[in-house]
Order: sequence, then C-alpha cells, then structure tokens
Amino acid sequence: MLQTRTGKRTAQAALKIAVSLVEQGVIDREEAVRRIEPASLDQLLHPMLDPKAKTTVLAQGLPASPGAASGKVVFSADEAEALAVRGEAVILVRIETSPEDIHGMHAARGDGSTGEVMVGEVPTIQPELSGDFATLMGWADAIRRMKVRANAETAADARTARRFGAEGIGLSRTEHMFFEADRIGAMRRVIMAEDETGRRSGLAELLPIQREDFAEIFRIMKGLPVTIRLLDPPLHEFLPKTEGEFAEMARLTGKDVAAIRHRAVVLHETNPMLGHRGCRLGITYPEIYEMQAAAIFEAAVAVAKEAGEAVEPEIMVPLIATKKEFDILKAMIDRVGREVMERAGVTVSYLVGTMIELPRAALLAGEIAETAEFFSFGTNDLTQTVFGLSRDDAATFIGVYQRLGIFEHDPFVTLDVTGVGELVRVAVERGRVTRPGLKLGICGEHGGDPASIAFCQAVGLDYVSCSPYRVPIARLAAAQAVLSGEAGSGTA
Amino acid sequence: MLQTRTGKRTAQAALKIAVSLVEQGVIDREEAVRRIEPASLDQLLHPMLDPKAKTTVLAQGLPASPGAASGKVVFSADEAEALAVRGEAVILVRIETSPEDIHGMHAARGDGSTGEVMVGEVPTIQPELSGDFATLMGWADAIRRMKVRANAETAADARTARRFGAEGIGLSRTEHMFFEADRIGAMRRVIMAEDETGRRSGLAELLPIQREDFAEIFRIMKGLPVTIRLLDPPLHEFLPKTEGEFAEMARLTGKDVAAIRHRAVVLHETNPMLGHRGCRLGITYPEIYEMQAAAIFEAAVAVAKEAGEAVEPEIMVPLIATKKEFDILKAMIDRVGREVMERAGVTVSYLVGTMIELPRAALLAGEIAETAEFFSFGTNDLTQTVFGLSRDDAATFIGVYQRLGIFEHDPFVTLDVTGVGELVRVAVERGRVTRPGLKLGICGEHGGDPASIAFCQAVGLDYVSCSPYRVPIARLAAAQAVLSGEAGSGTA
Repeated sequence: MLQTRTGKRTAQAALKIAVSLVEQGVIDREEAVRRIEPASLDQLLHPMLDPKAKTTVLAQGLPASPGAASGKVVFSADEAEALAVRGEAVILVRIETSPEDIHGMHAARGDGSTGEVMVGEVPTIQPELSGDFATLMGWADAIRRMKVRANAETAADARTARRFGAEGIGLSRTEHMFFEADRIGAMRRVIMAEDETGRRSGLAELLPIQREDFAEIFRIMKGLPVTIRLLDPPLHEFLPKTEGEFAEMARLTGKDVAAIRHRAVVLHETNPMLGHRGCRLGITYPEIYEMQAAAIFEAAVAVAKEAGEAVEPEIMVPLIATKKEFDILKAMIDRVGREVMERAGVTVSYLVGTMIELPRAALLAGEIAETAEFFSFGTNDLTQTVFGLSRDDAATFIGVYQRLGIFEHDPFVTLDVTGVGELVRVAVERGRVTRPGLKLGICGEHGGDPASIAFCQAVGLDYVSCSPYRVPIARLAAAQAVLSGEAGSGTA
Repeated sequence: MLQTRTGKRTAQAALKIAVSLVEQGVIDREEAVRRIEPASLDQLLHPMLDPKAKTTVLAQGLPASPGAASGKVVFSADEAEALAVRGEAVILVRIETSPEDIHGMHAARGDGSTGEVMVGEVPTIQPELSGDFATLMGWADAIRRMKVRANAETAADARTARRFGAEGIGLSRTEHMFFEADRIGAMRRVIMAEDETGRRSGLAELLPIQREDFAEIFRIMKGLPVTIRLLDPPLHEFLPKTEGEFAEMARLTGKDVAAIRHRAVVLHETNPMLGHRGCRLGITYPEIYEMQAAAIFEAAVAVAKEAGEAVEPEIMVPLIATKKEFDILKAMIDRVGREVMERAGVTVSYLVGTMIELPRAALLAGEIAETAEFFSFGTNDLTQTVFGLSRDDAATFIGVYQRLGIFEHDPFVTLDVTGVGELVRVAVERGRVTRPGLKLGICGEHGGDPASIAFCQAVGLDYVSCSPYRVPIARLAAAQAVLSGEAGSGTA
C-alpha cells in the first residue's frame, strides 16, 4: 500500500482571512477576490493527506496529477483493470505511459501531487467546496464576464466539471473514447479495412457506443452547451507500435501480422503533428465524421425526448486551414443532422464551428466566419505552428531557452501574447467583422492559466475552457481579469 | 547502356518567332518578353536526346531531374562512385534514395525528364545558351527589377548558376556539405561525443574541409553575394537508420553498436520539422555554429587576399522565432568574425541576417530587424507552419485536396498568397519600418515559380533565389512581373 504527500494548505488560510475581512467591513468583495492567488486553489480541489499523519517515503516518481490516493501498486494497465474490477484500489506505476495504458489509468486511483510514494495507507481529507471557498467563488462569479467551461470526455470528468462550477463543456475529444478497451478493436478494424465498405462496417459498431457516450454527457450537462470535436489524431495513433502488440492485434482481428505491420508502415508519418489528421481525415474518409455526426445528433434527440430539456451540441471541426474544407464538412454535418431529426421527429438546435489552431485559419478568419458559427482557439497547436515548435520534442532544449531568457515563460503554459496572441486578436477581429455574434472560446491548456485568461478577457473571448480541476482557478482568474482590466504579460 | 527521352522543343521555336518579330518591327521587346512562357525555357537548359534518333524504351521510372543522360546502370551509391572514379558514366537506379546515397548521386550522370529508360546510347544535344535565347534573356534582364540568385552548395552548382546568369547565391545549405563521404564520419563523431570537448574535436576536423568548400564557392562567385545558412536539420538526420548501418558506423567510429543505437533513440523526434533544429542547435551547441562562422570568415579573408576581390558573405541564421535567439547568435558570429579578421589582418564586409520561415518571426519582424541585416523568406517551412502541413506527409491527401478544389495549386509549388503571403507582406512592412534598407529575398522553392515570383515583385522583395536550372526562368518571370505590375494568384 502506497500513498503520496499533500502540498501546504496556505490557500485555505488565505480564503478564511479574505472572507473575514469582508465580513468585518475592512475590505470589499472585489479586494477579497483580488487577494487570492488563483493557482493556490489547486491545493483545495483534490483529496489530500491529513497533515497530522505520520508518513514514510519509499520512492519518488514523476507526479501525473495533483492530490493523493492510495492503493496496491501494479505495473501494467491490464493488471490495474483486473484488480479494479475486483474492487481493489490500485496505483498504476509505469516507466512511461502509452495510449495502450488508458484503460489502466481509468481503473487506477491516481499518482499524486509530488510523486512521493509512501508505505501504508495515510489518512486523507476530501476537498471542501463549501464555506469560505464557496463564498469567495460566488463573489468571483458575480464579477467575471467570461463563462468558464471544462474539457471533458468521460462521464466522470463531466460530473467533476459540474461540481466545480463549469458552465458547459468547451472541448470533448472524441478520440479518447476510441482508446477504451471495448472500442479500440472496432477502431482498428476501421483502419485495417481495405475499402470504404469495410470502414463503414467497423464504424457501424462504434456508432451506438459513441452515441451512448454523448448521451451520458448530455444528461450530466443538463442543457448546458457541449462542444464536441470530431476525430483529430492521425489514424496511426490507434495502431499498436511493437511486434508483441502487432501479434496480439493479429490474434484479436484475425488479420495477418504482416498486414498489420504493413498498414502501420504505410500510415507512418515524418511529422504527424502536421500530417493526415483533423479535418483532413474528415475530407478523405467522410464516413468517419458522418458516423460521429450521426452519434451526436442521435444522442441529442434521444436526451431531448427523455429529459424534455434542450441540449446544445456544438460540433467542432479540427485543423481547418481553408474555408472550403469547413464548407464541405459543414454541409455533410447539416445533412446528417436533418436526416436524424426527421427520422426522430424531434428538432434540436446546434452549432457547427471550428478550431482556430493554424496560423492560416487565424488569418483567413473573416472568410471562415461566413459559415462557421463559432471559433474555439486551439492554442496548443497554434503555439506549435506559430513557433514551429513541437511540444513533444521541445523538452530537450526548452530548459536552456528559459535559462538564457529566450522564453520568459514556457509558451505551452502561458500564452505568448506578442506572437500567438496577435493571431488570436486578428482572428477575433476578422471573425466578428463577418459575424458580429460569433461565439469565441479557447480550449488549449492556456484556458486554465491565469495570465492567459487575462489575455482572453482583454481580447474579448466569450469563454475559456480548461481541465475540470482548473475550473475554480479559471473562475477566479476571469474575475481578476475584469478587475485588472488589462492583458497579462506573455512569453518572449 | 540506358538513356531517357527529351520533351518537345517548342520553346526554341517560340523564341525564334518572338525575336524575329522584334527584328521585323512587328512587336516591341516588352511584347516579346511577355510572349514566352517562363516554364517552357526548362526544355532548353538540359542536354536533350536528339529528336531524330531512333529509341527503344526498356522501362519507366520516376524522373528525378530534367534532361537526358546515358551510362551504365548501377544499383548502389558505392558502385556508382567506384565506377565514376574509373571514368565510367553511370546512371544510379534506386528503389528510393536516402542521405546515404548522396555520393552516388554526385557521381552519377543523372536520371532524366520523363523517367523513360532506353537501350543504348542515344545521341544528345547540348543546351544552346546563345542566339535567340541570349537575345531574349538580355531584354528580360533590362526590364526586371529583382535580382535573381541561385540555391547552391557545390562548386558544380555554383558554376551552373553563374552560367545561367545568377547574380549571387541566395541559399547555400551547409548541411549538404556534411553528408559527403569524407565528412559524414567527422559529423557523426560530433554527434556521438559525450561532451563539448568531444564535439569540438570532431568539429576541428570539419573546419578546414568546410573552409575549402566556402572558399571554392567564393572564388567561383567572384565577389557576388553568397548567403550561407548555418546548420539547419536536426542532428539525427546525420545518423544511420538501419541495424546494418549502425554496425557499419560502429566499425568506422570504434563505438559500440548499442551506444550508436542509443544515441539514435535519444535523438529521435516525434515531429523533427518542429524539433531541435535550426538556430536551436546554435543555441544549445554554440560550438557548431562557431566552427561554421570561423570557416566562412577564414575562407572570405583567404579569397580576398588571393583574388584581391571583395567577397560578400551573408551569414544566415535559420528558424528564428524570437529576437533574443538571433541576438545571442549574431553576437557570437560577430565575435568570431572580429577574431578571424584580426588574425588575418584583412577586413571583409559581411551581413548577418535570418530566415523568416516561422509565423512568429514574420509577426515579430519589426523587432527582429533591429539587429538582423537581411531577411530571406524560407517559404517552404513557412508554408508548412502556416498550413500546419508537412511537405513529407501531405502526399497521402494532397491529391484529394486538389481534386475537390480545396487547393487550387499545390501550396509548396505556388505560394499561397492569401495566407502565407499575408505573413510575408507583414514581415516586409514591419522589417522595413525598422530598417528602411533591409535586404529582402526568398529562397524557398517558390523562388523559381513564375506565379510566386510575380507576388515577390508586388510585395517588394530585392531578389529571388532558386535552383540553378531555374535561374533563366526566374529572370524571365521577374521581367514579366514588372510588365504585368500585379501579383499572381495564389493557392486556395
């Protein structure tokens, strides 16, 4: 039994002082909101070790998420899942993780804030979202102008998002749903198919599963807007990588190992970030996006019928570089929507919009907004393309860059206001000239970073979207951005 | 003995007619320049099969370059080199080529315009650069405003460039020099070194070789400007890829196969295009750029002494995203220049400038021009980052994109005026506001494309640079751009 250590609980003290001073009439609510460091809230949002408990640190790893959890250590995703099914709490320990591990990650209880591994089960304290925390968040909500949504694709994440006050889902990455154990097989059959008929047969298996995923999220979000991004990663991400995995896949699919290896070689890309992904998949394999659109609309009409509550799907097309790509896919999505709603005899309102994550899309935003009904700034990929910098590969030199002062901040953490930010500003201006009511949000990691949130406020976005556990941080930062009334400083 | 077929010789007829009509007073020189399709000149610039000869086509391959050549077929680069050393003409035939083949490509006579392989030695006609061709090119030169330079890094290419009228070298890719058989070993020792001392020892071996490369080019270019780009590709491009090559490299370097394989794994990148390359190498391994700067300055002072003729090295830093990167490297280059010139007692004038090939560099051009003395638009990489599109990986779907009308032209052939072009225009404007005399050129493939050359003229560039065989095409297109006085149409 192992467990990880908690951080200091300074945030709780700061909240108590701020709320007390307001109650005593010493400061006003705005000043109280100003005084709390948004990032410090993170300490309050996860289960933590009881600071009074005695601990013995056994080892140290890389922390994967904040908080503390305990369980039996396992070293493979399959073992994690097997034990979790039997009701055991497990901690998954891997040299490094791959998409193959995702069922193990879901089955595991977690890895913790500091990466420290302790012997035994140390008592933990559950996060306390009422009291001073709730009071201050209420004041922040009254001040802020931007909405705060969450990035979520599982029911658990959607529930966490709601609990932390998310006002919708700003990014639901549908590909994450395909990595689960009950679907990766069907997805691989789609990829191994010789032709469109073969692909459609695999997709037909995925349709009801994906529909149920969406329906579940719509039920949890109770009529709040849900932005669903159509398939984004290149297909080779769904294929196994090693000879052992090729053999296992051959056993499961009845295909030849050589055929699987060949397909992996054919799909291999030199620069997958800049490759056959995003809407390029939707253009070349329209049946994939058709299936996803059908699943979204079928889920929406089903939940509308059962709940009598309007769901607002916002269907988002990734990696648009030209208006024509968007128009081709929007026409297809609208057609599928019409067909599903006619069949069901139910109408739901929906939007079709696009990520703005390539420099070209930002520059051509005025043209793209003629047909796109919303923009969501995908600032992770926009940072990668504006800097010509792969997030996966930057680790080897980004430390030197920060030491030499070339990067003031890591541009993947805090939005680069002068470079990436100019393209965001250009896209906002040009998009709104074409379509004054254009809905604008951000769904990159920057959506949960206080300095970047200040920029989003300054540039006029309608909402930020971030990981569920950062929603309270974003709510507070959005309020502070209104109070300071100016953009935060950026990178470089 | 095999040989490839020629294209039609319509260009020669068109030239003859245009020149005759001017001589007869029917049209003026401008009209004559207007009437020749620049791309058609390509037919005249390579040795061609005699159209009267009888041929027997044996097989068909992918054409690698225009023209016709004959020789004994060989299937490996080593065999090509071995036979070429003995004075035999060889044609290199490979399933696909890799950097390992480069010595074979240089040794071979070529592969031809159409990819057709013919039995026996078919008589060829050498390109005729005098007569009507020279007359019309003279008229074009009198009209055009932009200079035309060539991309060249070998003495042979530099000579060809001069013969075709290049007014300088716009891009000399120093990494090509490291792939040659006599240097790849030293380059690999640099990469395999455990520390800076080890790297410096490998670089010391490369310095005199690289110095002689530059000196040779300076001698051929006789005082014309020569732009030399410092090392650009990621280091793993210089390592072998297969187990057989690992073993061979182990034999040559005395290193362990496991150590070589390990280094290749460590250097492996997910997205090398967006990885640890360009000026990022110069920042993290300054000794590499120091060696290159020393080689350039030592060659410049040596040739200035022997020829008494001023050479104008323009040292170009690739992949700049921030002013700070450029400033750190310019300070180092200036210091090395001072040291070399003091030691030699000779002063040469030189410029230090940067590629503009990342969206961020284009946006921040005003700031970067405070210290950068010239810009060269690297529109290959700028197209890749603006579209988020890898040139290596686009082949799988770019055909569909053209069929559906998403791309009007291949954006890697004809510059995308609305997207990439806007960033070029922004960089030109902002750069010249800071530094009114800023020298501006283009060195991507677009520098040899007539429609893109029209855009370069419209946006106010000083020169275009293209492959040596496209120099006459660029000279004519630059004249036509002046005559039409408007930008060509672009992609999408």
